[in-house]
Amino acid sequence: MKEKLLFKGNEAIAEAAIRAGCRYYFGYPITPQNEIPEYMSRKMPEIGGVFLQAESEIASINMVFGASGSGVRVMTTTSSPGISLMQEGISYLAGAEIPAVIVNVMRGGPGLGGIQPAQSDYFQATKGGGHGDYHCLVLGPSTLQELVEVVFLAFDLADKYRNPVIILTDGVMGQMMEPVQFPPEVDISKLPVKKWATTGAKGRKKIILKSLFLDPEELENHNLRLQKKYRSMQEEIRWEDINAKECDLLLVAYGTAARVSKKAITLAKEKGLSLGIFRPLTLYPFPYNELKEVIQNGKVKKILVVEMNLGQMIEDVKLATEGKVPIGFYGRTGGVMPKVSEIIEKAEDMLREVM
Amino acid sequence: MKEKLLFKGNEAIAEAAIRAGCRYYFGYPITPQNEIPEYMSRKMPEIGGVFLQAESEIASINMVFGASGSGVRVMTTTSSPGISLMQEGISYLAGAEIPAVIVNVMRGGPGLGGIQPAQSDYFQATKGGGHGDYHCLVLGPSTLQELVEVVFLAFDLADKYRNPVIILTDGVMGQMMEPVQFPPEVDISKLPVKKWATTGAKGRKKIILKSLFLDPEELENHNLRLQKKYRSMQEEIRWEDINAKECDLLLVAYGTAARVSKKAITLAKEKGLSLGIFRPLTLYPFPYNELKEVIQNGKVKKILVVEMNLGQMIEDVKLATEGKVPIGFYGRTGGVMPKVSEIIEKAEDMLREVM
Amino acid sequence: MKEKLLFKGNEAIAEAAIRAGCRYYFGYPITPQNEIPEYMSRKMPEIGGVFLQAESEIASINMVFGASGSGVRVMTTTSSPGISLMQEGISYLAGAEIPAVIVNVMRGGPGLGGIQPAQSDYFQATKGGGHGDYHCLVLGPSTLQELVEVVFLAFDLADKYRNPVIILTDGVMGQMMEPVQFPPEVDISKLPVKKWATTGAKGRKKIILKSLFLDPEELENHNLRLQKKYRSMQEEIRWEDINAKECDLLLVAYGTAARVSKKAITLAKEKGLSLGIFRPLTLYPFPYNELKEVIQNGKVKKILVVEMNLGQMIEDVKLATEGKVPIGFYGRTGGVMPKVSEIIEKAEDMLREVM
Amino acid sequence: MKEKLLFKGNEAIAEAAIRAGCRYYFGYPITPQNEIPEYMSRKMPEIGGVFLQAESEIASINMVFGASGSGVRVMTTTSSPGISLMQEGISYLAGAEIPAVIVNVMRGGPGLGGIQPAQSDYFQATKGGGHGDYHCLVLGPSTLQELVEVVFLAFDLADKYRNPVIILTDGVMGQMMEPVQFPPEVDISKLPVKKWATTGAKGRKKIILKSLFLDPEELENHNLRLQKKYRSMQEEIRWEDINAKECDLLLVAYGTAARVSKKAITLAKEKGLSLGIFRPLTLYPFPYNELKEVIQNGKVKKILVVEMNLGQMIEDVKLATEGKVPIGFYGRTGGVMPKVSEIIEKAEDMLREVM
Repeated sequence: MKEKLLFKGNEAIAEAAIRAGCRYYFGYPITPQNEIPEYMSRKMPEIGGVFLQAESEIASINMVFGASGSGVRVMTTTSSPGISLMQEGISYLAGAEIPAVIVNVMRGGPGLGGIQPAQSDYFQATKGGGHGDYHCLVLGPSTLQELVEVVFLAFDLADKYRNPVIILTDGVMGQMMEPVQFPPEVDISKLPVKKWATTGAKGRKKIILKSLFLDPEELENHNLRLQKKYRSMQEEIRWEDINAKECDLLLVAYGTAARVSKKAITLAKEKGLSLGIFRPLTLYPFPYNELKEVIQNGKVKKILVVEMNLGQMIEDVKLATEGKVPIGFYGRTGGVMPKVSEIIEKAEDMLREVM
Repeated sequence: MKEKLLFKGNEAIAEAAIRAGCRYYFGYPITPQNEIPEYMSRKMPEIGGVFLQAESEIASINMVFGASGSGVRVMTTTSSPGISLMQEGISYLAGAEIPAVIVNVMRGGPGLGGIQPAQSDYFQATKGGGHGDYHCLVLGPSTLQELVEVVFLAFDLADKYRNPVIILTDGVMGQMMEPVQFPPEVDISKLPVKKWATTGAKGRKKIILKSLFLDPEELENHNLRLQKKYRSMQEEIRWEDINAKECDLLLVAYGTAARVSKKAITLAKEKGLSLGIFRPLTLYPFPYNELKEVIQNGKVKKILVVEMNLGQMIEDVKLATEGKVPIGFYGRTGGVMPKVSEIIEKAEDMLREVM
Repeated sequence: MKEKLLFKGNEAIAEAAIRAGCRYYFGYPITPQNEIPEYMSRKMPEIGGVFLQAESEIASINMVFGASGSGVRVMTTTSSPGISLMQEGISYLAGAEIPAVIVNVMRGGPGLGGIQPAQSDYFQATKGGGHGDYHCLVLGPSTLQELVEVVFLAFDLADKYRNPVIILTDGVMGQMMEPVQFPPEVDISKLPVKKWATTGAKGRKKIILKSLFLDPEELENHNLRLQKKYRSMQEEIRWEDINAKECDLLLVAYGTAARVSKKAITLAKEKGLSLGIFRPLTLYPFPYNELKEVIQNGKVKKILVVEMNLGQMIEDVKLATEGKVPIGFYGRTGGVMPKVSEIIEKAEDMLREVM
Repeated sequence: MKEKLLFKGNEAIAEAAIRAGCRYYFGYPITPQNEIPEYMSRKMPEIGGVFLQAESEIASINMVFGASGSGVRVMTTTSSPGISLMQEGISYLAGAEIPAVIVNVMRGGPGLGGIQPAQSDYFQATKGGGHGDYHCLVLGPSTLQELVEVVFLAFDLADKYRNPVIILTDGVMGQMMEPVQFPPEVDISKLPVKKWATTGAKGRKKIILKSLFLDPEELENHNLRLQKKYRSMQEEIRWEDINAKECDLLLVAYGTAARVSKKAITLAKEKGLSLGIFRPLTLYPFPYNELKEVIQNGKVKKILVVEMNLGQMIEDVKLATEGKVPIGFYGRTGGVMPKVSEIIEKAEDMLREVM
C-alpha cells in the first residue's frame, strides 16, 4: 500500500471511497464528474458492492438515505445543479442523523452555467442549502493526495457524527493527474457496529430513523442535541498556514484557488513581496479562531481572499477577523481560473494602497 | 380600496398576489400554507388566471420558469422542505434572469421536522440554497399589513431586477387574522412591457432565456453583470428601528420574532430597562450599513439577536457590527415561539453581565 | 358554418374538438400528432380554454381524469407508445365512468418502432389494453370529413355513456389535407348538466368518483352494471358497405386501409373483378351481426381483410363469420402502406384459388 | 430435490424463480402479490442477486429491460393496475426481443377495483395490452405444483424466444398453500451463452438492443421476422383435457376457474351429468387446433366457458369452434369466486335447453 499510483482526480475519489469501505454508490451522470460513476460501475460489481444509476439526483440522495440507514458506507457524487436537487434529501439526512459522503465536483453556475471548474457553491455547502438548523461537515482539499485522504476522513467523520459530509472539489482537481498514495484499506468487517442502524428488528426493538417530530418541544430538543453535536465538530478543524504570521499580506484560499495562491507566494517572494497563506481544509466548521489567532498574534497588514467565485468565503474571513485588518478579494468565476500573475498584481496593489 | 378587511395571513398573501397582477400560480400542498393554493384554486379560474397543482415542488418551480419567461406575473408558495426541492429551479431562474415571487411559510426543520412556525431557513434564503454566484431578494415582513404590501413589492422588484424574490414568513403569520388594507389593484395591461420575454417570435428575432453559457469568459461576464445587478439592489434596503440609538440593549429581529421583540420593549420599559429594536425588512440585501450606523452613532451597549432558530441572522449582525459591541442570542426553534418574558429575562441577564 | 375549409388532419382534429366543446386539452409531444397540441396551445388560451403540456403521457391521462371528473369536455391525443403509457389511466376512467376523448394517431410498433402510419394498435384499443372487464368505444374514420364528424360524435358518446372513447387514426390521415365542413359549433352552456360530476359540494351531498370497491359483491355488481352499459352500446354501431352482398370477394377494412381498398374496388372492376367492401366505423362495438347478415344473405364467396398491421381485426371478422366463407388477409406494417395494385393482386389470387 | 415442501403460492413463485436462475428482481408493492417482493428482498442478497424496489411499475419494467438486455435472468411481478403501467415497457421488450418473466397476480378491476382474485386481464395479456404487432407468451397454471413448473418453463421460453413471458395467476393461487416439488435447480453458469446480450463490447463489435427502426421497410421486415417467431411458438402449446371427447358438455377454463371446474365434473357425475374439461395452459399461443379437434372428433354437444371475469377467453373458444357447437358462459368477477354448485346448475340448464 506504500507505492504511489498515478490517478486522475475523479477516479482517485472512487478508488479511495472503495478502499475506505464504501460498498454502495448511487448517482446520476453530470459533467465534470462522470469518471466517478463510470469507475464505480466497473468496480462495485467486482467486489460485491452496489453501483446504481438512479433516475435523478433526487432519487440518488434518497437511496443514500435508505442504504446508509441500514448501516453501510454510502457515497453519492454530482456537480453543482445536482447538489441543488439534493437539498431536501441532505436536510433529511442531517435531521435523521444518517451518515453520508457527498462529493460536489463544482462547475460554474448559476443554473446550467457551464462545465468548467468553479467554487461558487461555498455558501450552499457551508451555510446550509437545505432548510432547517443543520450543518454538513465540509471538506475542501487542494491536492489529489489530500483529496484521497479526505475521502477516508469523510467516511470516518460521517460515521462518527452520524452526519452528511460534503467534499467540495472542482473539475480541475477531478480531471488532473497526480501520483497518490492510498491510506491502508479499511476492513469493513472491523468497523464499529452501528447500533442505531435499521439492520432488521428480529429479537430486538424496532429502530426508526426519522426527521419528523410533530411535537414542538420534542423537535426543539432534537435541534438542541444537533447543535451540541455541531459544536463538538470544532475538534475536527483542520487548516494549513504558511508564512502566515510573518507576512505582510495573507492570502486566504482553499482547494484549487489555494493551489494557485501557493504558487503566487513563491513567485511574489522573488519580487520582494512578503506573502503568506491560510488555507482552511474544513470549510465547516471554519477555522475562525485559528485565523483570528494568526491576525491577533502575527504582523499581517492586509488579507487577500482568493476564490473561484465572486466572493463567498470572504464572509467567513470577515467573521473571523472582525474588521481588524483590511480585506481584499480576488475572484474569477464561471470556469475562468485565477492566474498566479493576477494574484500577485492584486497583492501588489493592495500593499501599495493606503487603506 | 380604502376599507380594512379581516384576513387570515395565508389568504391575504393569495389575495394580494392577485391584486398585484399575479395570474399564474403553481404549487404543491404542504402544511402550514395550504390556504394559499386553496384560495388560488377558487379565485384564479374566476378571473381568467391559472391555478395549477403540480405533481411536485420541482415541477412547480419549473412551471414558474416557463410561465414567467413568457412575461406574466407568477407566484409559487410552499414551506421549508418544498423550498429545498426548488433550489435547482431557483438557481435557474436567477441564472436566466426570470422574475418570480416565491413564498416560504417556514416550518420547523431539518428534514420533515414539524408543522409549527420557525425561521430556520434564513441561511438558505439569504446566502443561496442553490448553486452558483446568485442572490434572491429576500423580504421578511412582521405584520399582515406589511405582508400584503410586501407581496406587491415582491412582484415589482422581481420585474424590476428580473430576479426571484423570496418572502420569508411562517405559520404564525399564515394562520393569524388581522385587518389589512390592500394597495390599489394593479392593472396588468398597464405594466411595463417585458421586451426580454418569450412572447412568440413572429416578426422579430427569437429570444432565448437560458442559464447555459459553455464559454467560460461568457459565463464570467454573465456573472459579473449579475453581481453588478445584485449590488444595485442596495437601494431597495428597507428596515425599521425604534429607540435604536438611545437604548442600552438593541434587539435585532425580523418577522414573527420581531413582533414578540417589540412587545418586549414596551414591557421592559416598565421594568426600567432601555430596549430598542432594529428590524430588517429586506434580509437580502441586509441593511449592514444601516445597522452599523446605529451602532457607531448611538449609545447601544449590547445587542440581542432574537430568532426562531438556533442562530442564523446573527452572522449578518456580526458582519455589520465587526465586534464593536457584544452580541447575545436568544432563539427557540422547532415550532416553539420565544416568549416576551424570556426575551426580557435574557436582556436583563445581558445588561447585568460585565462583558 | 357551411363552407368547406382546407385542413390538415391533425389540425382538423383539434379544431373539431374545440367546436365540439372541448375546453381542456392535456398532452405530451410525440410524432406524428404534434400538430394537435401545437394547435391547441395557440387556440385554447384565446377561447378561455386550457392547454397543458404534461410531464408525461401518464400525467396527461390522469389530468384528463381530474378535469373530466369535474364535468367539462376533455381530450388527450398521442401516438402508439403514448397510448400504452395511458393504459392504467384508461382503465381508471372506465372504472370510474368518466368521459374522455382519446385520439391515437397510430405509428408503427412495437416499442419505439417508427414514425410512419400503422394500424397495429387495433387489439389494444378494442380488446382492452388495460386491466379489468372494461371496454372503450372505438371509432376508426377514413376521410377527414368523417374524422371531423367522429370527433363531435366521440364527445357526445363519451358523455352519453360516461366512458372513454378512442379515435384510431394514423399519420397518413393526420398529415393529409382535405376540405372539411365542420358540424354546427356546440354551445357548451347548453350541454346537458352532468349531475354526477364533482363540481363543488356546497349545499349538496358529496360526490365521489372512484373505481375502488373493496367488497367483492359490490365490485361484481359494479361490473355487471358496466357490462349492461357496454351491451347497450350496440345501438351506436356504424359501418359502411359498398357492393357488399353482390360481390364475389368482400374487402373488410377501416381507416386508411379502407381508403386504399375503396380505390381497389373501382380499379378491379375494370379488370372484371367483382369486389365490395364492408367498412366498420365503430371498431368497438364491432358490427358482428351486420357483417354476418351480409355473408348470410349475400353471395360473397370469399373475404379479404386488409389492415396496416399483421392481422388483428381479422379475429373480429372470423368471430362474425364463423367459418362460413374463407378469409384471406393482406397487411403491411411498420409504416409501409398497402398499395391498390397489391390488394387487387391478392384478390385475384384468392378468387383463382379453389379453397 | 425430491422432497415436497409446503409453500404459499406467492412464495413458491419467488423460490421457483431463484431456483430457475433468476438473479435480478425489480418490483413495486401491490396487493395481492407482496409476498413475492418480500421473499425476494430476503433471499436475493443472500445469493448475490439483486432485489430492487423501484419507484413505480414503469421503472420496474424498464429496469427489467436494462438488466435482461445484459443477458441475465430477470423477473418482475405485480397485480393488474401495475401490469397496465408496464404496457409501454412490455411492448419495448417485445420489440427489442429481450427475454423477461412477468407475473400478474390478477385482482378485480377495472381501475383500482379490489384486492380479491380475478381473471379479468386475459384480453390484456393475450391480445396485447401494448401497441404494435407483438405477442407475449402467456401461461395460466392451475395448481401450485404447476405454477412452480411454469416459472421454470417461463424462464426457458423467454430465453428461447427472446420474448417476454407473462404468467397469469390470481390471489387465490398466491395465498393458498400446497405441497410443491421443485424441479432441479438451474446452474446459471451452464445456461447457453446469450450472444445477443450487451455484456461489454471490449474486443468485439458493439451490440445495440433496440425497437427503433425509422425506415419503414426495415421496420416491416423486423415485424415479419417477429411474426415468424410468434408462429413458431405453436410448438409450445400445452393443455390438459379430461373426458373431453366423451362428455356431453365440455367445460373450458384455465387457472383457478379450472380448479373449480374440475371439482364440478366429479360432483356432476354423481348427478348423472357427463361433463369434461379442456384446460389451456398456454393462453398465448391458444390451443385452437387442439380444441377444434376435440369438437370435431368428439361427441360434445355444448361448451360452457368458465372464467373469473365477464367473458374474455370465450372469444378464443369461439375462434376455435367456429359456431360448430353452442357455447355458454358462466363467469363471476370482481373477486367473487364461481362455486362448484353454480357451475353444475348452469351445466344442467344448458343441457336441458334445446338450442
